[in-house]
Parts: sequence; structure tokens; C-alpha cells
Amino acid sequence: SADTSPIRATLFPGDGIGPEIAESVKQVFKTADVQIEWEEHYVGTEIDPRTQSFLTWESLESVRRNRVGLKGPMATPIGKGHRSLNLTLRKELNLYANVRPCYSLPGYKTRYDNVNLITIRENTEGEYSGLEHQVVRGVVESLKIITRQASLRVAEYAFHYAKAHGRERVSAIHKANIMQKTDGLFLKCCREVAEKYPEIKYEEVVIDNCCMMLVKNPALFDVLVMPNLYGDIISDLCAGLIGGLGLTPSCNIGEGGIALAEAVHGSAPDIAGKNLANPTALLLSSVTMLRHLELHDKADRIQDAILKTIAEGKYRTADLGGSSSTTDFTKAICDHL
Amino acid sequence: SADTSPIRATLFPGDGIGPEIAESVKQVFKTADVQIEWEEHYVGTEIDPRTQSFLTWESLESVRRNRVGLKGPMATPIGKGHRSLNLTLRKELNLYANVRPCYSLPGYKTRYDNVNLITIRENTEGEYSGLEHQVVRGVVESLKIITRQASLRVAEYAFHYAKAHGRERVSAIHKANIMQKTDGLFLKCCREVAEKYPEIKYEEVVIDNCCMMLVKNPALFDVLVMPNLYGDIISDLCAGLIGGLGLTPSCNIGEGGIALAEAVHGSAPDIAGKNLANPTALLLSSVTMLRHLELHDKADRIQDAILKTIAEGKYRTADLGGSSSTTDFTKAICDHL
Ligand SMILES: CC(C)[C@H](C(=O)O)[C@@H](O)C(=O)O
Ligand SMILES: CC(C)[C@H](C(=O)O)[C@@H](O)C(=O)O
Repeated sequence: SADTSPIRATLFPGDGIGPEIAESVKQVFKTADVQIEWEEHYVGTEIDPRTQSFLTWESLESVRRNRVGLKGPMATPIGKGHRSLNLTLRKELNLYANVRPCYSLPGYKTRYDNVNLITIRENTEGEYSGLEHQVVRGVVESLKIITRQASLRVAEYAFHYAKAHGRERVSAIHKANIMQKTDGLFLKCCREVAEKYPEIKYEEVVIDNCCMMLVKNPALFDVLVMPNLYGDIISDLCAGLIGGLGLTPSCNIGEGGIALAEAVHGSAPDIAGKNLANPTALLLSSVTMLRHLELHDKADRIQDAILKTIAEGKYRTADLGGSSSTTDFTKAICDHL
Repeated sequence: SADTSPIRATLFPGDGIGPEIAESVKQVFKTADVQIEWEEHYVGTEIDPRTQSFLTWESLESVRRNRVGLKGPMATPIGKGHRSLNLTLRKELNLYANVRPCYSLPGYKTRYDNVNLITIRENTEGEYSGLEHQVVRGVVESLKIITRQASLRVAEYAFHYAKAHGRERVSAIHKANIMQKTDGLFLKCCREVAEKYPEIKYEEVVIDNCCMMLVKNPALFDVLVMPNLYGDIISDLCAGLIGGLGLTPSCNIGEGGIALAEAVHGSAPDIAGKNLANPTALLLSSVTMLRHLELHDKADRIQDAILKTIAEGKYRTADLGGSSSTTDFTKAICDHL
């Protein structure tokens, strides 16, 4: 666009390797001359000494105001509130859809070629309701909640995405043969939305069968939309097909056009601060953020540079079998820009 | 054993291709001189004209009396009661553990070599409680139930199995970071049992991560034990690694030493009666039944003959890329006995 005033975006570097890989994104954006001004906030597992908080109201407001943000990994120490951190962000910002593009990286060989899948996960309800209780000693229950509103919203997003990205098919993943009411409602909503998109093929696939088909032949699928837990499972399975969470971008979509892109891998405390982390997932996530801002030229340039660097194979971090540092890998990407 | 009086076993050929593949098992058992007398009952989607029933009390009693049985596929026409058939069998016979050995078949190439996994699935509760209701219009909920009793029972079975089969490790698969109470109780039970088996390694793996690791490197796992739905998903994923449900045996274990082996693939109505079906899954399931009866010699001989026939590749059914009929494939197996 002709407007050159900088866009403001929120940055949560996160825990562990988060700050290093966030630095890598800043570096690449600077080199690519992306006019973004980062509003950096600490959100993470340690109490921030400056704010005495894991997560300040200002951090949330920053995303709400900027409408775009990038989030590094947040650690999962049991009982230390990680759960509430990731889930709190989703809840507070109403991040109703989690979108994970998953494609084979040229030159990085796995058992699968030409994977090209999009998983779109309902991100607010289902098995993540947090409603659980002990009925009597030794008998506990969890509530899975499915609502028409959230199901329609994520289905809309999936079909809209499919159409906008020239995709052919949306598969709704479910277990309605067992959970007829909950998953049944989810499917009903998908069907309603599907009718408004006659140009997009629509099908329904049972989750167990979907997983079997994905490992046999991922090319059978295109865009997949599903309730929260199935999305959690299938998006990681898909990531595994192309090499793991270190290579897959993720973006959370919220009401009012909010997009919070994120690396979904762990915070890798064992290698934190050692300049060994692979910034690819966060970099590719930042690309999805740029696309959300319709900065497609910048997005293309940066994505190309990342993919070229990986394809060349000269600079690769240890998790990809190389011995490059985070900064050398980042520099190699910048050199391709 | 020296006792040559025939063992009685129940046979439910099931729907679609069920009768043909059951015939194949009978043929192979006869050729291998297995002293089994089949008690055949119809259980399936059509009303049996002789009994006017989908599932008679006598069919259930037959399994309860014989303690061993073999079950073919039962169809899933929506609203036609398939759900209740499979689940009813599990419930009525208290089939608390579903065991699926999943190993690469020599000579049948997939993307994965040397897969050798056992999934052990809790088979009676969890997300399969059937408890669902509409809270208000557009808001539905399902109850996931986890009990100490069922969790201990399946964990016991898994560790017992691991020990009896010389396995090294049991991994409990869960999502206790989200469902702290339900999956938390499941893990607590696994830990209690693990303590009684110090010779078996024990670990806990979150389901999303487990799926990613399975597709990246299945050799990371050995025996997996998990709640119902995760077992449904992961056992199919594992089947996909080695070629699909047409090749994987399954056995349901019930209280009092009942074993109901089963083919878990569909009833394939499109090819039913055409002598095209692949009987491998039911044959390998019948082998697990023989092992349950401690007829290891017969089990070994039959398993070898099946694996040799597949490895040679001369006789293969259409689903495996060949053009053999069910009967020719069966004959080839018999020739190897
Ligand atoms: C860490 C965990 C709470 C989270 C989830 O289950 O959603 C993670 O697996 C993810 O996919 O973002
Ligand atoms: C058909 C269906 C009800 C069943 C299940 O979900 O358990 C099947 O997938 C299985 O694994 O046996």
C-alpha cells in the first residue's frame, strides 16, 4: 500500500528460547524493510520483575488495539500456570480459530512429499471447557461443550479461508458416530455454512479414519476444520508429517479481525540462551501475520528467503541435523532477502 | 496340550464381507488342524430372519460360556444401530481392553519399516459414556467419565501384557494438561500399577505430541495404554503406518478372561459377496485368539503362513494392489501351512 506509516504489532517473546527466536524475526523484518513497530510485552511462566505479573492487562490491550501480534513459546511447568496462560490468551482475546498451514519444506526430506494441508481448529470450547468434577470418589467427569455459535464461527472462517486461498475442499473432522449431540451439532453447523459455498467441496470424516488416511496419504485432504481437541491432535500429527512443530506456523484468529500468530513448539529451556534455537516456526508464523495485514509482497519475500535457506541446507540448526547457530541461520535468511 | 477335545469358540461373521473372511478363517483353521468347534451366531445390521433380531441373548451367552470368540465387521449405516451393536457387545461382555498389535508386514512396503507397537485402549468409558444433552438451544454437552476402577483395570492389563510379551516400556497417553481431573485420574492409576512393575519402563506422553512422534518415528514407542477415545484415534493412526485396518488384528479382553478377537475394518458392502475381500485382519485376529488360548504352536504356524503369503506377493487382494480372490489368497496361505 502507499501508506508508509508504520503498523504497530504486539510481540510476546515468551519463555525459554522465545527471546532469541523473536530477535530473529525482528532482524529479518528489519532487513526486509517491513514497516512494523513492535510493542513488546512479557507474557510467560516467570513473574516479570518489572510488572510483578505473568500477564498484564496492558499486554492484552496491546493486542486488542493493534489487532495483530506474534507470540513465542510459553513453558509448561506442571502447576505453574502455563495452561492458564495459553488458554487465558485464547479466552481473553476470543481467539476462536487456530489456523496451521502445514506444507513440505523443499529440501527438507521426511517420509512425505508435497504435503499441503491447512488445519483449522475451534479454539475456545469443546474438551477445553475446564469444567470437570469428581462425582463420587474414583469417578470423575469432564464436560465437552459444543455451541452453535462457536461452531458456525469457525466453520465460516474455514470456508472463507478456503475460498480466499483458492482451496478446493473442506473436510469436517468429527466423532459424531459416538458423540451424536456435540459433534453432531458441530457437523450441522458445518453443513449450513457449506451450503453457502457451493464452489467448495465439503465432506465429513471420522477422526480415527482421518488419522489413518493422513498417515497413509496426506494428499487426500486439503482444508480440515474441527472441534478443539481433534484440532490439537491433528494439527500436531500434520506437523509431524513435514518434520515437526519447529517448522510449522500457526495463527490464532479472534473476533474483530485480531490475528495472533504463534510458534506452537515448546520453550526448550535446555537450549535457551545458547544461540541454538531454530526460529523457523516463529518466522513462518510472522509471515502469516504479514499476510493477515495483506502485506503479501513482504510475506512472499520473507517466506522465500526462509525456504531457500532451508532448501540449500548449508545453514541449519541442530534440530534439523545441522550445526548452525540461531544468528547464523538468521543471517543466511537475511542474505537471501 | 495333550487334551485333544475340541475347544468351542463363538463366531460372529458379521455384515458385508464378514461371512467371506470368516470362511477364510475356518478354512485356514481346518488346514492347520486347529481343534476348534465354532458356534456361529449372526450379529449384524440386518434383522436375522431366523431370530428376528440383530443380536440375540444366545449370541452373548455363547461368548460368555466359551470365553473366546471371533467377530467380523459390523456395518455402520447411520441411524441403523451399528453404534449400539459394537458398543453393546463391549458393554454386555464387559470388554474392558482393546488390544491392537501393529507391526510392519515383511514385503508389504509402506513409508515405515519395523513398526512394532501395541495399543491398549480402555474400552468401556471416557467419551463413550453416551451421556449427552442439550443445555439450552445451541449449547450441547457430552460427559467424559473416567473411573478409578476401569483405569486400574486397563493399566493392569497393559503392564501384565508388557511383561508377558517381553516388552520394555509402557507409555500412558493423555491430555491431563487440559483435562486434569479425568485424564489426571487415569495417569494416577497408571502410576500406581507401574510401581508394581519396576522392570517395565513407564512414561507419560501428551496425545498431540504422541501423534507427532508416531508419524516422525514410531520406534520411539512400545506398548501404549490410553483412555477410550485416544485409543480409538491412535490405534487407527498406527494401523495407517503399516498399511491400514485391513492388516491389523484386534482383540477385546473382558472380565473373567473373555477374549473377543475382531477385524476392525469396515464391512465393505460394495465388494461383499464378490470374493474380493482381504481376510488378513480377521485371520491375524484369529491368531491373537489362539494365543489367548495358549495354542502358540498353531498361532505361530498360521501367522507365519499369512506373513509368508503376503511377503511373497504373488497372491494379494485388490486392496493391497493385487488381483487375487479371497479364496485364492486363502488357498495360498493353506499351501504354506
Ligand atoms: C500446551 C497446550 C495447552 C496446548 C493445547 O492443548 O492447546 C498446545 O498443545 C497447543 O496446541 O497449543
Ligand atoms: C465404529 C466405531 C463405533 C468404533 C469406535 O469408535 O470404537 C470403531 O472406530 C472402532 O475403533 O472399533
